[in-house]
Amino acid sequence: MRSHYCGKVDESLLDQEVTVCGWVNRRRDHGGVIFVDLRDREGLLQVVFDPDRAEVFETAERLRSEFVIRVRGRVRRRPEGTTNDKLPTGQVEVLGLELEVLNKAETPPFHQDEHDVGEDLRLKYRYVDMRREHMQRKLKLRAQVTSAMRRHLDEQGFLDVETPMLTRATPEGARDYVVPSRTHPGQFFALPQSPQLFKQLLMMSGVDRYYQIVRCFRDEDLRADRQPEFTQLDMEMSFMSEEQIMELVEGLIRSLFKDVMGVELENPFPRMPYAEAMRRFGSDKPDLRIPLELVDVADLVADAEFKVFSGPAADKNGRVAALRLPKGGELTRKEIDGYTEFVGRYGAKGLAYIKVNDPSQGREGLQSPILKFLSDEAVAGILERTAAEAGDLIFFGADKATVVNDALGALRVKLGKDRGLVADGWRPLWVVDFPMFEYDEGDKRWYSLHHPFTAPRVENAEALKSAKPEELISRAYDMVLNGSEIGGGSVRIHDTEMQSAVFDYLGISEEEAEEKFGFLLEALKYGCPPHGGIAFGLDRLVMLMAGADSIREVIAFPKTQTAACLLTDAPGTVDNKQLRDLGIRLRKTVQDGEAKE
Amino acid sequence: MRSHYCGKVDESLLDQEVTVCGWVNRRRDHGGVIFVDLRDREGLLQVVFDPDRAEVFETAERLRSEFVIRVRGRVRRRPEGTTNDKLPTGQVEVLGLELEVLNKAETPPFHQDEHDVGEDLRLKYRYVDMRREHMQRKLKLRAQVTSAMRRHLDEQGFLDVETPMLTRATPEGARDYVVPSRTHPGQFFALPQSPQLFKQLLMMSGVDRYYQIVRCFRDEDLRADRQPEFTQLDMEMSFMSEEQIMELVEGLIRSLFKDVMGVELENPFPRMPYAEAMRRFGSDKPDLRIPLELVDVADLVADAEFKVFSGPAADKNGRVAALRLPKGGELTRKEIDGYTEFVGRYGAKGLAYIKVNDPSQGREGLQSPILKFLSDEAVAGILERTAAEAGDLIFFGADKATVVNDALGALRVKLGKDRGLVADGWRPLWVVDFPMFEYDEGDKRWYSLHHPFTAPRVENAEALKSAKPEELISRAYDMVLNGSEIGGGSVRIHDTEMQSAVFDYLGISEEEAEEKFGFLLEALKYGCPPHGGIAFGLDRLVMLMAGADSIREVIAFPKTQTAACLLTDAPGTVDNKQLRDLGIRLRKTVQDGEAKE
Repeated sequence: MRSHYCGKVDESLLDQEVTVCGWVNRRRDHGGVIFVDLRDREGLLQVVFDPDRAEVFETAERLRSEFVIRVRGRVRRRPEGTTNDKLPTGQVEVLGLELEVLNKAETPPFHQDEHDVGEDLRLKYRYVDMRREHMQRKLKLRAQVTSAMRRHLDEQGFLDVETPMLTRATPEGARDYVVPSRTHPGQFFALPQSPQLFKQLLMMSGVDRYYQIVRCFRDEDLRADRQPEFTQLDMEMSFMSEEQIMELVEGLIRSLFKDVMGVELENPFPRMPYAEAMRRFGSDKPDLRIPLELVDVADLVADAEFKVFSGPAADKNGRVAALRLPKGGELTRKEIDGYTEFVGRYGAKGLAYIKVNDPSQGREGLQSPILKFLSDEAVAGILERTAAEAGDLIFFGADKATVVNDALGALRVKLGKDRGLVADGWRPLWVVDFPMFEYDEGDKRWYSLHHPFTAPRVENAEALKSAKPEELISRAYDMVLNGSEIGGGSVRIHDTEMQSAVFDYLGISEEEAEEKFGFLLEALKYGCPPHGGIAFGLDRLVMLMAGADSIREVIAFPKTQTAACLLTDAPGTVDNKQLRDLGIRLRKTVQDGEAKE
Repeated sequence: MRSHYCGKVDESLLDQEVTVCGWVNRRRDHGGVIFVDLRDREGLLQVVFDPDRAEVFETAERLRSEFVIRVRGRVRRRPEGTTNDKLPTGQVEVLGLELEVLNKAETPPFHQDEHDVGEDLRLKYRYVDMRREHMQRKLKLRAQVTSAMRRHLDEQGFLDVETPMLTRATPEGARDYVVPSRTHPGQFFALPQSPQLFKQLLMMSGVDRYYQIVRCFRDEDLRADRQPEFTQLDMEMSFMSEEQIMELVEGLIRSLFKDVMGVELENPFPRMPYAEAMRRFGSDKPDLRIPLELVDVADLVADAEFKVFSGPAADKNGRVAALRLPKGGELTRKEIDGYTEFVGRYGAKGLAYIKVNDPSQGREGLQSPILKFLSDEAVAGILERTAAEAGDLIFFGADKATVVNDALGALRVKLGKDRGLVADGWRPLWVVDFPMFEYDEGDKRWYSLHHPFTAPRVENAEALKSAKPEELISRAYDMVLNGSEIGGGSVRIHDTEMQSAVFDYLGISEEEAEEKFGFLLEALKYGCPPHGGIAFGLDRLVMLMAGADSIREVIAFPKTQTAACLLTDAPGTVDNKQLRDLGIRLRKTVQDGEAKE
């Protein structure tokens, strides 16, 4: 039907006849001649129709934006002064000899070149939106990324194995999407939040090295940039230590960036214990491109009369930290108020600060509402620890450690962006030595920081049982890139006794464990090899690589924040007969269209 | 943790130290020495522990089947007379110097070498089953197949694009699996039966060439060899005729067989119109390895007094066909009774036959209960058309054409297998020129033979509207391999008017079309390119390539005939709170554990 892609017609084809197909990107009539920018996946090509060929010209006159056409024509050099150096096809044009309208088009809801199209409109007419060059580029990048991943892992002896989508509920996980079973009425499948247990079962099956690029599902409230269905690169391997796993996985990511982006990442990636990351950056996914750091000052202010500081300084779960912003003295009152409001979203009750006019003058060179509450020693200590210089501003957080970390950690990133302090380039990081458990004050119980199959860094189940839960460190590792967690994994528990001991810490009774994880505990008995793995969030990784600011930009047909598809209008209704077959009915309040119970 | 895979230790490593990990396949004590066949993904390796090293020997004495161990040892040549030429490692053994038990194992439910393990047991302990060499081989083959597909398609400029799993119900399809929406209570997503509409939307998005290896779902009764979730290689391309599509797709399959199996398939694949396939083989997926063919004889028996023949011969929907079985005279009465029962399952009311003792003697040389009803001309005609030879048997089918085709088509395949007539090798075939619609006597309406988006072979919507539905031919094509349909596709409708006209034939009102396909009809208005594609059933294709006799053999974690997972015990119950959040409740009959309404 065609001889060449539009975007591939260049000077090498001069004076040859080509047949091209595509969309009319734009039609211009100029000097009695019709110019059409014809577009296909590979780019734009200028086609010219002149009135000498009456029939063709007449058809060309009827062309409008987004008409789908086929043109046979001769490639010729564009007249001097009309070339376009920005396009690979910009030196040539095609003189149209034959023109066929393959399909007409109504005026599209937005034009290809239009900026600032609302996202709802883009999603509803995604097939128009995706025709745009930046979307085509993102789709291609995503395909290149998965292709490069597969190639690398195939070479490393990893086996691509598919795991079920219709499976069991995920205990201890987020909310599952469920699928009613017709053959077992009243029962439900769950869509997988990850193939975690199946990949562990594959290790027990002797697969040795497994990977899968796999859809996962979480029925969570879609705050932030999340999707109800998302894609993971999922990996698992046997007979390897975490050291070896991390090395292998680093190699994958390095080769990916090299192959797809031409970027050489550090070798090896730096590593940082979780505790250090929280202390220095208030975050377990620090963006190392930003040169700001948190500094602990609790000891300096423990005796202050200022309760806002001395309270948290005395609390073993409290934290008092300072964050120096170089040249922060420039900030206006309004800007500081803005940041105060910003940290408030993270639970901070305020945002104390000190303006540093001249640190060599001590207290005299400073400016701050809280200055009067601090001793000279405290002031001197703060200036020293933060290495404050003239013109700087020092922010403070004082509260429960979790609040301080969340608030100052977020403020650090925001300041970095607002003040142009984010360095160029790629800063990968392994965060390691995570706590095994975290305590939930509300539920009054311990939860796994990763998941209940993560191995603790102890010799055996006995050692685990005798440890304090807050002191246990797991054999988990997260890969962080430019402040985003792109992957997380761990060495897994491979023996029944250790697994049972972990369930104990989580307050899962023997019966409950049997009910929920019986098949796993059973499987562990029949010869489970030591194993571990990792999962990467593909959407986020591709988003970072594409420089996009939402994962929706790198998903062909994403859903909205309310988990709806504006294009197909999903979800939709299901008729009663089908519900009856499934053994379910709608709740009355829903049937009546009222709010749910 | 290890230096080599067990299966890779051979003479090239003689006198070297290796560290290997794996499962104890078997332990034998012989002449005061302990022999362990150690197994990993790559194969078996003999490890020897001798009593000289007391500590290691003591540990080795405690080893049992499926223990997971790690051995450091020295590679040495096996003593003469004890080598095993069947194993790549069979010339060597490893003298164990160090032994670590990584995990113990209880006695597994079946041994690695055990044959005839019931499928339920295999599925429940899939992680033991998959350790077996034949399962490892199938998993590897499957990974090789998808890898080769991707490589080929990437090279051809196809873009791997992911489409949603949580989507809209499929109108006109099989029964959907549905997923209740929490954010839109009372509404449901459907899991895709195929990404058909999304891939068409991708063509409208200018993607030009799309593929995806994608999970699909059908909530059908699992007769035959089906799974509720299955995997497709899904493809779609723009600006190509069916001729070009078929050529490209053939190239993929040929390269696949070459790369993975070292098999050269015919070039080009033969093509056969649907009507010819039905006439000659009673099937739209004829197994060309079997040299038996159906022959029409209705005209010869139209005037017979035998109503069983003359009735169908006079019916325009009837068929009378003969199937000659060379050397079929050898069949016993009991065998013929067996085949009569067999065709009964396909709706045939009987199975007439003629034994051909000596065709040169005409009627005298034959033997059959129906002979007396046939004229001399009919007998002579039948012998001639079937080219019957002495010793043959001729079977007859006479009924509605659909029944005759189903019955004799199935009989043909069964005879081929029973009588050893199936030739070796691979016989691909394109079946083309399918009818556009088929009439359902029960529902009294026309259905699409493929799906409602398949283009008819007519110039335009006007021509479609003026045609008789039974005479319309579609632009569809099925790829058949050794009697299995492995892929099916078509050129799609790319304009609104044609699509509406097809909906008309299917009795879909404008309102219904708008409700169900509104977004497609809308999308067609904004510049849809001509496009077409195909989907391959990956499970079936891999099954054929593996020489397996069920798709469950090439799926890591398959479900049973009642759509259950014996390993994880899915589906399971969901608690009431979650159901309430979803706006649904169980029907009372189900809650009480009674039969459903």
